[in-house]
Amino acid sequence: MGTATALEHPTREDIRIEAVLHALADPVRLRIVQAVADCGEMACGVLDLHVSKSTLTHHYRVLREAGVIHQRPVGTAKINTLRRDDLDALFPGLLNGILAAPR
Amino acid sequence: MGTATALEHPTREDIRIEAVLHALADPVRLRIVQAVADCGEMACGVLDLHVSKSTLTHHYRVLREAGVIHQRPVGTAKINTLRRDDLDALFPGLLNGILAAPR
Repeated sequence: MGTATALEHPTREDIRIEAVLHALADPVRLRIVQAVADCGEMACGVLDLHVSKSTLTHHYRVLREAGVIHQRPVGTAKINTLRRDDLDALFPGLLNGILAAPR
Repeated sequence: MGTATALEHPTREDIRIEAVLHALADPVRLRIVQAVADCGEMACGVLDLHVSKSTLTHHYRVLREAGVIHQRPVGTAKINTLRRDDLDALFPGLLNGILAAPR
């Protein structure tokens, strides 16, 4: 058994539109969401966003705690996926609308 | 002819997802957007949001400059409408997804 702290995720019922919009309103986090959507799965740090590792970790955490992404630890990395089913159920159209935006 | 300064609105082409999400990420502005969507048209100040008039004016301006709402001066008031056609064309589903969120 490892000693890693479990990553906390809100349940679908606890996801709030205010937190989701706050998470998505940051340009770096929006870029992360676009990339995760494009790639399906993505290890933290793969993106070249010109921000420090700790800043990137912070952004992923904000997205996770808002319920936008799911993070699964794999070794020393984390695999990120969009919580598309949850977001589509709660806010139908929101995610697709955002991902349709010109980059 | 009046001396009122014309209210500036971005053209559809100038609306950016980053600005829209920033505008919507504030809880008071989100509440304004929900109310304008419910009412169709709404004069500034009709909402009871427990913020000062100047704060409310600021929030409406952020929404207008981001391209989320259209403001039309009528006498000393402003009539606000959602730029639904523009937002639906640019980010299909975004607005409906946000408005579908539990209040």
